[in-house]
Amino acid sequence: MQQTLLNEFRFFDPEPTVRKIAYELYAGVKDLPIISPHGHVEPKLLAENKPFPDPAELIIIPDHYIYRMLYSQGISLESLGVPTVDGSEVEKDHRKIWKIFAENFYLFAGTPTGVWLSHEFVEVFEIHEKLSGNNADNFYDLITEKLRTKEFLPRTLFNKFNIEALSTTDAASDLLEQHKKIKDSGWNGKVVPCFRPDAAVNINSSGWKKEIEKLSKVSGIEITSYKSFIRAIENRREYFKARGAVSTDQGIISPYTHKLSETEVENIFQRALKSNATEEDASMFVANMLMEMARMSIDDGLVMQIHPGSFRNYNEKIFNKFGLDKGCDIPLQTEYTRNLYELLNKYGNDSRLTLIVFTLDESTYSRELAPLAGHYPAMKLGPSWWFHDSIEGMTRFKQRVIETAGVYNTVGFNDDTRAFLSIPARHDLSRRIDSNFLAGLTAKHIIEIDEAKKLSHALAYGLVKKAYKL
Amino acid sequence: MQQTLLNEFRFFDPEPTVRKIAYELYAGVKDLPIISPHGHVEPKLLAENKPFPDPAELIIIPDHYIYRMLYSQGISLESLGVPTVDGSEVEKDHRKIWKIFAENFYLFAGTPTGVWLSHEFVEVFEIHEKLSGNNADNFYDLITEKLRTKEFLPRTLFNKFNIEALSTTDAASDLLEQHKKIKDSGWNGKVVPCFRPDAAVNINSSGWKKEIEKLSKVSGIEITSYKSFIRAIENRREYFKARGAVSTDQGIISPYTHKLSETEVENIFQRALKSNATEEDASMFVANMLMEMARMSIDDGLVMQIHPGSFRNYNEKIFNKFGLDKGCDIPLQTEYTRNLYELLNKYGNDSRLTLIVFTLDESTYSRELAPLAGHYPAMKLGPSWWFHDSIEGMTRFKQRVIETAGVYNTVGFNDDTRAFLSIPARHDLSRRIDSNFLAGLTAKHIIEIDEAKKLSHALAYGLVKKAYKL
Amino acid sequence: MQQTLLNEFRFFDPEPTVRKIAYELYAGVKDLPIISPHGHVEPKLLAENKPFPDPAELIIIPDHYIYRMLYSQGISLESLGVPTVDGSEVEKDHRKIWKIFAENFYLFAGTPTGVWLSHEFVEVFEIHEKLSGNNADNFYDLITEKLRTKEFLPRTLFNKFNIEALSTTDAASDLLEQHKKIKDSGWNGKVVPCFRPDAAVNINSSGWKKEIEKLSKVSGIEITSYKSFIRAIENRREYFKARGAVSTDQGIISPYTHKLSETEVENIFQRALKSNATEEDASMFVANMLMEMARMSIDDGLVMQIHPGSFRNYNEKIFNKFGLDKGCDIPLQTEYTRNLYELLNKYGNDSRLTLIVFTLDESTYSRELAPLAGHYPAMKLGPSWWFHDSIEGMTRFKQRVIETAGVYNTVGFNDDTRAFLSIPARHDLSRRIDSNFLAGLTAKHIIEIDEAKKLSHALAYGLVKKAYKL
Repeated sequence: MQQTLLNEFRFFDPEPTVRKIAYELYAGVKDLPIISPHGHVEPKLLAENKPFPDPAELIIIPDHYIYRMLYSQGISLESLGVPTVDGSEVEKDHRKIWKIFAENFYLFAGTPTGVWLSHEFVEVFEIHEKLSGNNADNFYDLITEKLRTKEFLPRTLFNKFNIEALSTTDAASDLLEQHKKIKDSGWNGKVVPCFRPDAAVNINSSGWKKEIEKLSKVSGIEITSYKSFIRAIENRREYFKARGAVSTDQGIISPYTHKLSETEVENIFQRALKSNATEEDASMFVANMLMEMARMSIDDGLVMQIHPGSFRNYNEKIFNKFGLDKGCDIPLQTEYTRNLYELLNKYGNDSRLTLIVFTLDESTYSRELAPLAGHYPAMKLGPSWWFHDSIEGMTRFKQRVIETAGVYNTVGFNDDTRAFLSIPARHDLSRRIDSNFLAGLTAKHIIEIDEAKKLSHALAYGLVKKAYKL
Repeated sequence: MQQTLLNEFRFFDPEPTVRKIAYELYAGVKDLPIISPHGHVEPKLLAENKPFPDPAELIIIPDHYIYRMLYSQGISLESLGVPTVDGSEVEKDHRKIWKIFAENFYLFAGTPTGVWLSHEFVEVFEIHEKLSGNNADNFYDLITEKLRTKEFLPRTLFNKFNIEALSTTDAASDLLEQHKKIKDSGWNGKVVPCFRPDAAVNINSSGWKKEIEKLSKVSGIEITSYKSFIRAIENRREYFKARGAVSTDQGIISPYTHKLSETEVENIFQRALKSNATEEDASMFVANMLMEMARMSIDDGLVMQIHPGSFRNYNEKIFNKFGLDKGCDIPLQTEYTRNLYELLNKYGNDSRLTLIVFTLDESTYSRELAPLAGHYPAMKLGPSWWFHDSIEGMTRFKQRVIETAGVYNTVGFNDDTRAFLSIPARHDLSRRIDSNFLAGLTAKHIIEIDEAKKLSHALAYGLVKKAYKL
Repeated sequence: MQQTLLNEFRFFDPEPTVRKIAYELYAGVKDLPIISPHGHVEPKLLAENKPFPDPAELIIIPDHYIYRMLYSQGISLESLGVPTVDGSEVEKDHRKIWKIFAENFYLFAGTPTGVWLSHEFVEVFEIHEKLSGNNADNFYDLITEKLRTKEFLPRTLFNKFNIEALSTTDAASDLLEQHKKIKDSGWNGKVVPCFRPDAAVNINSSGWKKEIEKLSKVSGIEITSYKSFIRAIENRREYFKARGAVSTDQGIISPYTHKLSETEVENIFQRALKSNATEEDASMFVANMLMEMARMSIDDGLVMQIHPGSFRNYNEKIFNKFGLDKGCDIPLQTEYTRNLYELLNKYGNDSRLTLIVFTLDESTYSRELAPLAGHYPAMKLGPSWWFHDSIEGMTRFKQRVIETAGVYNTVGFNDDTRAFLSIPARHDLSRRIDSNFLAGLTAKHIIEIDEAKKLSHALAYGLVKKAYKL
């Protein structure tokens, strides 16, 4: 039965020559350790190492990939147990939630979420059936039972998954206490923080003032001016770096980069402190901060990541009722050539900087991103991201990027996930797609098999390790 | 000879494993009834049920897909008999027109028009030869002869084509007399109207005032204000619905949506009545009407369709001489995320609304449309449209949409055609491409064969029936 | 060993049916003469017919495709011997430069540059090894030795490469003395100039005034006004045409077209003469000149080429140190529908004009360019260009363009290269990709094999010959 659900040749080109080479390449990388340099696993999970709760709490309730699709078909988030901001009631019967999910599992046919879940059920829980309304209870019971065993404690799975290093994502004001707890516990799993200052940089978001207060407190630098703000940011980067961080990350609407004059930026900052910042102020402040972060990265060596082009919390009704990150983020068209001009001209020729750029706008792959990454020593391309980290999406990324930027201006894969259990599924998928892509090149005699093997290893392991210095 | 012209495995992947599955899936759907929920067949055709005229009048003169290509190679529309606005002379010898077409039929190699025509010649007219200058007369005679027989009367073909339901497209002021005639005739073919108010909504088009007068007349509501205009529109929707309509349709430049205040919109409307509306007024009025139409759809249950991004009548010379719809419409880059924001936030969470969105801008498939349709209960994706309803175009649509939106947030196929005889060819093409797409997923073990069969049925029949409530 | 490096089936689909047809089609076109209607080979090369210098001087130092990739990996242009503007020192040991290149040749795996170079080494230099650090010296010696022989003189290679016609690219003020020298030499190779007036049209570029002075001198028309400028341009077009030119070429940021009034354009021109032209002036002047160039093309029959969307010399540091064309040009998003509106409406219906449009923005292939070229008699689509003239890039171009525009609204291939030795490699790649594309259509029964053969010939030879009247 396993052949049916998780065929060993899955995702490979059905053409026998390509498939054979793909399988050979995949065999060479499938057991390599996982490096996960960018993601959203809660460090608390590994700090506390408590058993996972029930299947609904584990798989459905925290994963917007899953309830997004269910919601699009008219299933309410309340009925799926997604907690509300005001604490108003939602479904509490987790077996019932699981049942709804199971009955609608067919909706995920042909989606990466469907593929990851199938992998999870077979490989992690050893359930060799297709989930449906009929076997929902059986799945629920089997998973619940396993979750109570030692084998399913987070750290045990971390080791079983063969994770060599995992980066979390953390606010600039975070004290990284969970990371400390992990370290202090004596457990040898490598879990590092990533410095993400969005909440401190978005001067017109509702929580900004609070974040600035926190930042003042944790840095010991009273933030009353732009200059003290910058000192506090530098202070926090140092703090993060000392606790293992290798990178920073910024989510932005547009990748516009521009250094403001001291007066301009100070004026904006003062307006922000008085809650008078305009939208234009906020955009310019972000543009300026991208320049500052690049400068700081050259100083302290932290890898700089940016991922523009997501309209966050697009659905106001959902946002107001359920809060952040509920699957209502929608991509926007994004421009890189003109927007990155100032940053790349100032810092792009400097090999001390590693600037990893992600996108949700695939039309920029071959038009802007590959030509830029294929020229500037500092710039590298992050993998296909979010809506695009799928079979077709990853394939398109490779097809449009490699010919111009080459393999060595990319940085391998990252899973960017909140769903700890999906990490092996995602890396396995990526390794399969890369193997298949390289097999295609080999079968077309564009590269030779020994080159393909080297590139395969680089994509699965070498590039990410080098780029993130992990 | 038939094998050569219309091979039974045509359009399938040549790889034997995929081809075999594709053929199996196709075999399961090829004889399903055709539901054509969106198109431009004249209801008069089926109301009168008169024999089709000669081959040139049937195939060339009314079809801008065909003379567009001929024109691009320097063949004048006059020489193809396309009638002029001012009645100035054009070629009247239809055999001569046919000859020009036949001699240039090679231009269509590799185009969907070429593929549809080949299907038509073989399947409808049973001519198993490739059209060329040499056999032009022979084709002309054979087709002419068949068109005179009973078997080629429109209603007979409707039945032969196995059309379960066909939607026409009709102006808001249309009395639907042809539809009445069809119903009254006792013939059991299902032909329903679709409410398309463009002429009444585009306040700065030359014919607007006339359309408003007509609308006043047919609704019995004197339109002197925005409020009375809206009442008239609501009145006509009711009228259409009572006569079988299941949907509305709007062609727009940009999908910008915005509800104006009562004063704003009334002022614009009054300027329009005095022929003083600006371009900005016209755009804002459309944006406002999209909000109104969504509201009305929630009330009356008509499916709402929008297809933005076509620059109509781009070629002024052709437009001035030959009028509307002469193949001079050119796509424009289109933005959905920001433009649909207001509409989706107001109505997108409401499952009573079905909003079907089309596009001519393929770069929005994976970037904007699939993420939106994969989240909002109200929004569904219309199939690849117009310049994209081709073998490669349909394949790209599926490859870029399904992974994020899933199959069940799409609505199957529609032919959108004026060319009645091409309907089976277009649906057959679509079913083949969908079968082939699903066969690829199956051969790659992304889905299983039983899932593929269900999805195949849904794409060919189930989804369109459900979405349009037909 | 040759099989490994340059497999006879390279670049074809591995699926045996497709591969067999591709090979058959390719066999029919591979030995056709090369027509190179657009490129940047220096005419001096063929006028002087001197031996090529050493391998580094031949292959690395002048080719930004190559050092762009090396630079992106942190290798300085100085270390690659790229000459500086101010004459400051760069690496002079060409064997050392070659060694760096050889050691980093693996970076080109999967890129078209890698593929062209492999072709060059095997087919031109008959070295059947993969270049690496280990055999760098061996390569250097072998190539150096060959370059000293008669068989490697430029004209001998021109004949060996079976080049039927080659167009260079030349400034409006160029006296075409090298072309005269070629003609006077009695050698029968066909080398024609192409009229590229960019330096005279970009009124706010630093060298503009100098170019205007030159233009005055060579045309004998003192340029003091817009009118005299236009007379000078017309004069030069005549001069070029008399010396064999068949085309003009313009590199522009945006393809915006707009005829200014006589007063407007004269005012701009006078501001430019006083070095007071604004950026807006410069853009409007280009828009106006596109209209003028189209008008002139209708008069004198020169084919008009435009290639928009490149942000030239993006990297200021490199530009300031090393000058123009050093691989720092980055594509920009480009809009054609609205921008070409005025030109196409004025001249697009005129079959005397051939307007060949290129793009670096692939999202416009199916959205804008194919619909426009599939309608206007004057407009044709140039092949996939620069970052896109690769295996995947060419395939995408065909897949997105042919279904709407057909094959006959395209113009075959051009190599656009500075690297004379790469010409056969590039045309061979193009012929292979076209053969493979047509083989796919044939294997899917979209076209028949005899059609495929005709289309194959057209794409390799017929279309370019006809479009450029060569």
